[in-house]
Amino acid sequence: MTEQKQPPRGLLVVYTGHGKGKTTAALGMVFRALGRGLRVTVVQFIKGKWKTGERLFAETLPQLRFHVMGLGFTWESDDLARDKAAARAAWETAREEIASGERDLVVLDELTYTFHYDFLPLEEVLEALRTRPAHVHVVITGRNAPEALLEMADLVSEMVAVKHPFTAGVKAQIGVDF
Amino acid sequence: MTEQKQPPRGLLVVYTGHGKGKTTAALGMVFRALGRGLRVTVVQFIKGKWKTGERLFAETLPQLRFHVMGLGFTWESDDLARDKAAARAAWETAREEIASGERDLVVLDELTYTFHYDFLPLEEVLEALRTRPAHVHVVITGRNAPEALLEMADLVSEMVAVKHPFTAGVKAQIGVDF
Repeated sequence: MTEQKQPPRGLLVVYTGHGKGKTTAALGMVFRALGRGLRVTVVQFIKGKWKTGERLFAETLPQLRFHVMGLGFTWESDDLARDKAAARAAWETAREEIASGERDLVVLDELTYTFHYDFLPLEEVLEALRTRPAHVHVVITGRNAPEALLEMADLVSEMVAVKHPFTAGVKAQIGVDF
Repeated sequence: MTEQKQPPRGLLVVYTGHGKGKTTAALGMVFRALGRGLRVTVVQFIKGKWKTGERLFAETLPQLRFHVMGLGFTWESDDLARDKAAARAAWETAREEIASGERDLVVLDELTYTFHYDFLPLEEVLEALRTRPAHVHVVITGRNAPEALLEMADLVSEMVAVKHPFTAGVKAQIGVDF
């Protein structure tokens, strides 16, 4: 691994797959980027109801913009129109942060679910990514990333669940799983 | 996903595979755990030479114990005895942190390479994991995790490189890759 000599080029990174560690890996990139003094924004598209560990820690970091804009998981919802409006609002925030060029890293956490439920038109998101300022890194997480997004991405890591404690009857743990 | 009612049980988590995102996912768990006020220790077994982004950020977090104890990658080394001694020192630190019960989460970053190069006896590490205090979460990262470690783990995620920018001629980026 050699350090860059070329001007920084913003990467499009996708963490997908059914294994654990997608949001977690994105948070790790935030951890690393903050150490370099990069300007970071996180937009969470689904999470919203819970006080997550990441949200609590983000509140201690004034240099980090952390927008929790989801309303919880769709399969628990009784108002899809409201969920769709929340996805739209989250995307408008994200799009402005990306297009402004004032952020170095923008994380779109669980964005892929908004395509799956037809809350957002994929083409609109791809266009915003395609035309973003050259230095802006974007990280997208979520299962079932659309093929066109994978094609555009510079880096795709698929998390494969080799073993998962929930299937073994171990419940979600505070501070570890959320 | 339901919240725990049972007493917290320390999980053994392994992030392995050839894709990117293993250390990154571990850092994300640290991010989340700090938000919950958990007591966290990170021991890096290989990284050491560089000032990484995670190290720089960790220096701003007095509540986090972050031990960088590696000497760089073995394939760049000209003194394997020195590397082996460094691995031993890192493990002694890690073992004490785990056994003390005073930490809630201990990350052993890139530990698996120490087995690959016979720097540490696997059985000694497994024994320390097996006999650790019940509440202590341990996260281990690195390629080629040994089978016996995977068997003991509660959660294994394998990072599969679907697409990797270095293979496409894009160089490692400060704040994103390290």
